[in-house]
Amino acid sequence: MPGNSQGPPERIEADYLIETAFDPHDAAAAMAGEQSSGTFVPIPGETPELKERSAARVESLTVTGSSAAPSLPGAARPADNSRGQIQQAKVTLSWPLSNLGPSLPNLVATVAGNLFELRQFSGLRILDLRLPMAFADAYRGPKFSIQGTRDLTGVHDRPIIGTIIKPSVGFDPAETAELTHTLCQAGIDFIKDDELQSDSAHCPFDSRVEAVMAVINSHAENTGKKVMFAFNITGDLDQMRHRHDTVVAHGGTCVMASLNSIGLVGMIELARHSQLPIHAHRNGWGYLSRHPMLGWSYLAWQKIWRLAGADHMHVNGLSNKFCESDDSVMASAKQCLTPLFEDRPCLSMPVFSSGQTALQPPETFSRLQSKDLIFAAGGGIMAHPDGPAAGVESLRQAWEAATSGQSLAERARSHPALAAALTASRK
Amino acid sequence: MPGNSQGPPERIEADYLIETAFDPHDAAAAMAGEQSSGTFVPIPGETPELKERSAARVESLTVTGSSAAPSLPGAARPADNSRGQIQQAKVTLSWPLSNLGPSLPNLVATVAGNLFELRQFSGLRILDLRLPMAFADAYRGPKFSIQGTRDLTGVHDRPIIGTIIKPSVGFDPAETAELTHTLCQAGIDFIKDDELQSDSAHCPFDSRVEAVMAVINSHAENTGKKVMFAFNITGDLDQMRHRHDTVVAHGGTCVMASLNSIGLVGMIELARHSQLPIHAHRNGWGYLSRHPMLGWSYLAWQKIWRLAGADHMHVNGLSNKFCESDDSVMASAKQCLTPLFEDRPCLSMPVFSSGQTALQPPETFSRLQSKDLIFAAGGGIMAHPDGPAAGVESLRQAWEAATSGQSLAERARSHPALAAALTASRK
Repeated sequence: MPGNSQGPPERIEADYLIETAFDPHDAAAAMAGEQSSGTFVPIPGETPELKERSAARVESLTVTGSSAAPSLPGAARPADNSRGQIQQAKVTLSWPLSNLGPSLPNLVATVAGNLFELRQFSGLRILDLRLPMAFADAYRGPKFSIQGTRDLTGVHDRPIIGTIIKPSVGFDPAETAELTHTLCQAGIDFIKDDELQSDSAHCPFDSRVEAVMAVINSHAENTGKKVMFAFNITGDLDQMRHRHDTVVAHGGTCVMASLNSIGLVGMIELARHSQLPIHAHRNGWGYLSRHPMLGWSYLAWQKIWRLAGADHMHVNGLSNKFCESDDSVMASAKQCLTPLFEDRPCLSMPVFSSGQTALQPPETFSRLQSKDLIFAAGGGIMAHPDGPAAGVESLRQAWEAATSGQSLAERARSHPALAAALTASRK
Repeated sequence: MPGNSQGPPERIEADYLIETAFDPHDAAAAMAGEQSSGTFVPIPGETPELKERSAARVESLTVTGSSAAPSLPGAARPADNSRGQIQQAKVTLSWPLSNLGPSLPNLVATVAGNLFELRQFSGLRILDLRLPMAFADAYRGPKFSIQGTRDLTGVHDRPIIGTIIKPSVGFDPAETAELTHTLCQAGIDFIKDDELQSDSAHCPFDSRVEAVMAVINSHAENTGKKVMFAFNITGDLDQMRHRHDTVVAHGGTCVMASLNSIGLVGMIELARHSQLPIHAHRNGWGYLSRHPMLGWSYLAWQKIWRLAGADHMHVNGLSNKFCESDDSVMASAKQCLTPLFEDRPCLSMPVFSSGQTALQPPETFSRLQSKDLIFAAGGGIMAHPDGPAAGVESLRQAWEAATSGQSLAERARSHPALAAALTASRK
């Protein structure tokens, strides 16, 4: 795991940000108790031997600051602290692997179960996880990862340029195929369904795959370039397997699923079944993360899904249209490219999207220092004044500038598609 | 759906609490656009016909109040509102069923996808869902529900009295069976594994089932009373199926799973496979719900899991040890007992737990007005001064008092187990 030069730990470790009006050490001990052999009152069977075997431990605690008011409602205050201090602290807990074995679903119950509701806390967020090597043996991680995705797209020396079918929902299969045709002609590398479009009466999944893959296969025969289309197969398990098999049967090269819709068992099963890269959509991430003193950090969360088998992970984008900061976006992308285990890196290709245009590549590259990403733009392609082909070209040129250290303005002088994109973006 | 005297709606409907510095009507329109055919900029293909077919609609909006400061960080303010008002409103959106069909995973992406991250909102919480009848045809809901659980336990005229194996984790199969023996002798109706105990080297699932069911089956042969034990089968899908089958093979009558660990596809598949009631544990609920302006209300959330097949749903308990208010607990329990559809009620038996003793039954019953619940107590049973049998007896007596309109004190006069429990609870 990152930053752990001694290799993977023997025990499961989790870092938390906590906020409490109690002594933080007492509060952390309560957390460890609730999530292992303890309870609110002493229990006859909790012998010293059982504790030694099964109890969670507080490995470290550092007070990081204080809060003028409780961040979340419902927390208790100690009797002697009615006007006292509310402190914030970073805490590391650890559990014996033997409490649960290398099971991702039981890991979630252990590190992120009832503890968010404990009355000691007016804030509690899981920041990071470090797992024993047994988890890498139990779950295979991404089957394709970066290299497999590059091999399937034939894009090896630069970011993969992608886009999303818009309108998000409402096109029928023929309309989807027509837009796909336009995008293939424009030289796109990657296209994805929207997360709102899986299977419907107006756009049945099988018909959409048939229509879209006819276009993509024909384009591949004519040009040698096979565009990767991430078909949204989100659904019940039998539906996902059937849809995956339909994509395979038509020569498709990617499937997409909404992680928070299918859940962990759905993702594990899909990954076991899949012969294609899994494009993992994180919609719903806001309800897990948007309050800074509650829920999940992306660092902890993405490790679970990468182990389960996510080949591509959404990370939002710089200057995005949502409420996430650029620092948070870049931290997420770097995490996807940081090995989980030294000899089992389980890397996921970060997917940048939301309001991405030719303007973002320089800062994205200078902060990420990697070309291993999918860069998905909508208006930056379809709304280019000289059409979608110029739109795709302008994004490639922007990435060439970014990765060669040239400024956009400089490169635009000899590259009219980029020049037009920059002019349009200033309006 | 509750409160809908016209029967189920034709469109999918969702209610939200929103907080925004923008005109709430504009913000709600942006939500509807983001979650259907719209995007941040006009799209060529979004024709009036496509909008008519696929766009989400704002059905109603009521401003409910204002906020002095944004509840969540990251929200934008309109240029003309730098010191303006932040308003809160209740909004109802609707979607054509044809956008996604009756698919629970795609429902989650549609009603709870990217919208929590929209910059227009400094607060956004999903309050309720109303679904077309097609969802009840696609998902079977609880197979056992209240009546099936009562038939399996033989408890028909009162709440089911239960307890949880404690210490939560650390006992081996023999120790678990020994405690089960004590509890059977004490006259318990229901026992559950803790959510932290599924399968481990020290307490392998199969050995635990074998040891526990030997006790339960022997007790049933001797007394005619078969105690229901909810074995925690949380794990990967093949593990859950195997563990379920093991429970069936040993004559067990209930399985338990952690909903937020297995996810929706895991629950749907488990419900399809299961021949036993599914005891649904909600651990992790805090990260979905604890901030009042973010995430999920229990009302919306429990409807999804009931449709997926949850026979028992955890609702916390009155005067609990967590941070949830009594009003919230009672609202949750009532919701589990409110039909989803008139002719397909899909009721889940609410499970009261956390710090429950002989003190809570009167208020619980007076507020719920139903005996259809599982009442799980730990210390109230094991720490009774006259032992576990008196503990179970005291809880039954407390419920007899509650449901007959007698006070606890009155009933305690002629019922020593209850009297001892009340005396102990005053210490």
